[in-house]
Amino acid sequence: MIYLFNTLSRQKEEFKPITDKKVGLYTCGPTVYNFAHIGNLRTYIFEDILKRVLIYNNYKVKHVMNITDVGHLTSDQDEGEDKMDLAIKREKKDPKEIAKLYTSSFKNNLKELNIIEPDIWCQATEHLQEQIELIKQLQKKGYTYETTQAVYFDISKFPKYAQLSGQKIEEKKQGAREEVIVDKEKKNPQDFALWFKLTGRFKNHIQHWPSPWQEGFPGWHIECSAMSMKYLGEQFDIHCGGVDHIGVHHTNEIAQSETATGKSPWVKYWLHGEFLLLDKNKMAKSAGGFITLNTLREKGFNPLAFRLLCLQTHYRQKINFSWESLAASQNALKSLYEKISELEETDRQLKEYKEKFEEAINDDLDMPKAVSLIWEVLKSDKPAGAKKKTLLNFDKVLGLSLDKIKPLKIPEEIKTLASTREKARINNDYKKADQIREELEKLGYQVEDTKNGPKIKNKR
Amino acid sequence: MIYLFNTLSRQKEEFKPITDKKVGLYTCGPTVYNFAHIGNLRTYIFEDILKRVLIYNNYKVKHVMNITDVGHLTSDQDEGEDKMDLAIKREKKDPKEIAKLYTSSFKNNLKELNIIEPDIWCQATEHLQEQIELIKQLQKKGYTYETTQAVYFDISKFPKYAQLSGQKIEEKKQGAREEVIVDKEKKNPQDFALWFKLTGRFKNHIQHWPSPWQEGFPGWHIECSAMSMKYLGEQFDIHCGGVDHIGVHHTNEIAQSETATGKSPWVKYWLHGEFLLLDKNKMAKSAGGFITLNTLREKGFNPLAFRLLCLQTHYRQKINFSWESLAASQNALKSLYEKISELEETDRQLKEYKEKFEEAINDDLDMPKAVSLIWEVLKSDKPAGAKKKTLLNFDKVLGLSLDKIKPLKIPEEIKTLASTREKARINNDYKKADQIREELEKLGYQVEDTKNGPKIKNKR
Repeated sequence: MIYLFNTLSRQKEEFKPITDKKVGLYTCGPTVYNFAHIGNLRTYIFEDILKRVLIYNNYKVKHVMNITDVGHLTSDQDEGEDKMDLAIKREKKDPKEIAKLYTSSFKNNLKELNIIEPDIWCQATEHLQEQIELIKQLQKKGYTYETTQAVYFDISKFPKYAQLSGQKIEEKKQGAREEVIVDKEKKNPQDFALWFKLTGRFKNHIQHWPSPWQEGFPGWHIECSAMSMKYLGEQFDIHCGGVDHIGVHHTNEIAQSETATGKSPWVKYWLHGEFLLLDKNKMAKSAGGFITLNTLREKGFNPLAFRLLCLQTHYRQKINFSWESLAASQNALKSLYEKISELEETDRQLKEYKEKFEEAINDDLDMPKAVSLIWEVLKSDKPAGAKKKTLLNFDKVLGLSLDKIKPLKIPEEIKTLASTREKARINNDYKKADQIREELEKLGYQVEDTKNGPKIKNKR
Repeated sequence: MIYLFNTLSRQKEEFKPITDKKVGLYTCGPTVYNFAHIGNLRTYIFEDILKRVLIYNNYKVKHVMNITDVGHLTSDQDEGEDKMDLAIKREKKDPKEIAKLYTSSFKNNLKELNIIEPDIWCQATEHLQEQIELIKQLQKKGYTYETTQAVYFDISKFPKYAQLSGQKIEEKKQGAREEVIVDKEKKNPQDFALWFKLTGRFKNHIQHWPSPWQEGFPGWHIECSAMSMKYLGEQFDIHCGGVDHIGVHHTNEIAQSETATGKSPWVKYWLHGEFLLLDKNKMAKSAGGFITLNTLREKGFNPLAFRLLCLQTHYRQKINFSWESLAASQNALKSLYEKISELEETDRQLKEYKEKFEEAINDDLDMPKAVSLIWEVLKSDKPAGAKKKTLLNFDKVLGLSLDKIKPLKIPEEIKTLASTREKARINNDYKKADQIREELEKLGYQVEDTKNGPKIKNKR
């Protein structure tokens, strides 16, 4: 059984997927306007661990991740500029080039961090039609209204709006500062844009498409609802992201999706990864507030040292990142690798037998010789693990199903009998010891006294 | 380097494929009119070993096997009845049913003997067009003639006819008995049928198709040329079969194929497996002359015991099969399995740590706990192989690339230094021993004296 902390219920719950042994998993992907920083990457490492734990437990995971290449404003809400527009102006490239560059850098980061790639990547600008259709559904159900600047979702019609964040809407209203509310025609400050029109502050917006509500571009939140449901169905198991997405992005996704389908809950488990904090004092001299995997590599760090650093803190705890702690993780990783390389030494294939075997099979398929080498290996005084590896390699050619042999399992009652006999033997009660030995033999087991104590074997 | 005995040259040759690291392999398959007997199966085991040895040596093998479901006469030459017709009459089923039944039984046999399936299966009756086209080519080149009963290949026009078998044609002519020559219009006794017409003795032949030479059916040999060249090209690397195919079937295949393409050699390496002989006296009481895998199973034998029996004799030596030798192979296999199951015992995952690990990861992804278990495993006094297995299992979730760690390799000169030191130590020359220890440390190695002698480690 797997227990996961569900943001929806604010407690650990036993994980039970909608369909037995299958998991639909959606994780919010990058906005491809810049390199990912290590704070972003911590979230993807947490999600990778979640996915690997599910796979380890024999779940078949279908993992979908989006690539945001339009509509994500600098505020995460409806204020500020489109992050993609900023990058386009900054780098004087066209939107496709920008998206391609940072998507490819992001995918490289995943690879370097041993993060398993999603099964499906989906890009916002390649799913315009799906987003427009979803907005049309919301409009048809009467949950939207239009202003001069945009089409909004009216949150006052969705009473469960604050369920995920646990914040009261009233509180948020008071907190919303006057100066950031750009569209005076908005009914509630938390109403969020589904579609921005090519007008007003977005008159010169670079990427835009035709729509039933005037030429424009989709808001950020609608892409995740449209694409996750396209690939995982109207209801699915797990949605992840950073804790910063709880209050706005994920809250808005739920409102849209449950309104459109009429089904609840849209997603059964919501998991959120905590922040990685930079110690500004210690960072001052170095890369400052924006540290990428490249920064780590330039400083001589193995990206997997960063992975280990992340694993050493629970995903729901903040990490105070410092170069000292990363150096400690790198040392731990090095030491681990060294220790494991020494373990391997005792357990590798037996070179001399491997060579003899290859000589035999490559000399006009000399199988009688190859078979005789099996017995030589078994009789040798090499470690058991090395013998086994050597023989399994032989079996690639011999095909005797040696790989299917189950390890010998000694039943508990036999172990108990053997240890009773051992006690008798130590106490010089040889009569009793011999009696038990005979009894064990009748049960099909043989006891051999070795310098490491008694060894139980199947009687042959 | 692989050396193989090539029937064409009658000597062991170094194997060099036509295209680097790729091998085209054609092995004559079963005539699906009855169950395969253990003599047939020995040949498929030999071919499987050949294929596995090639794969072991990193060749990419494309393996094609045919299914003969028409035209194979009981004599292997042009005399006797079509084996498929015999089965159709015997079992009162239609040809497709017969072919399906025995093909499926044959494939099951392969599976039970751990024989890797061919990449391509091809059935004679599904390649009628290819066979007719090939005969038309031979006709166009003037190598065929037609009688009332059939279309023949004229072997007197192909001077290399006896190359593979090494027999002189004259000898064979003398050996051919008058009474088995059914078609009096044949020019040479070894001329072989490419197409049989639906007339004379084959007037009531069950399977037949239209052709440029009258309704009829293809001879046996033409299918192997047509299908092997379709899937492996006009020239390919290896052709295999039983030794009984050398003189007629394979000889005829070469004549047809090289005539059609004008290229020689058609196949670079010809390999043939020897017979398995039944000791008639000892077999008398049991299944007699026709022993199948099913017979073995009914007598309590593991099909892999038969595989092992075959491996114990070189493929170019005859095997005198007896139940005693099969029983001996079965005992050897059992003993091998037992010994291996005991090897595994010392080398399996450490259950207690595995359980703790699973508890940690399934408790809301408790990675700090999971990471701490790595160090507990390393510090434990368990066998190295078991530690390694346990940690590699952990890494399925941790993703720290533990599986990529190379085993520690100690250079030969370091080993020599260490053994010089050991000799000095044994001779109580502690000054010299300490000197060498210091030298080793400067080179980055550390010597630890254990009860099993000195152990060299990387200095940390």
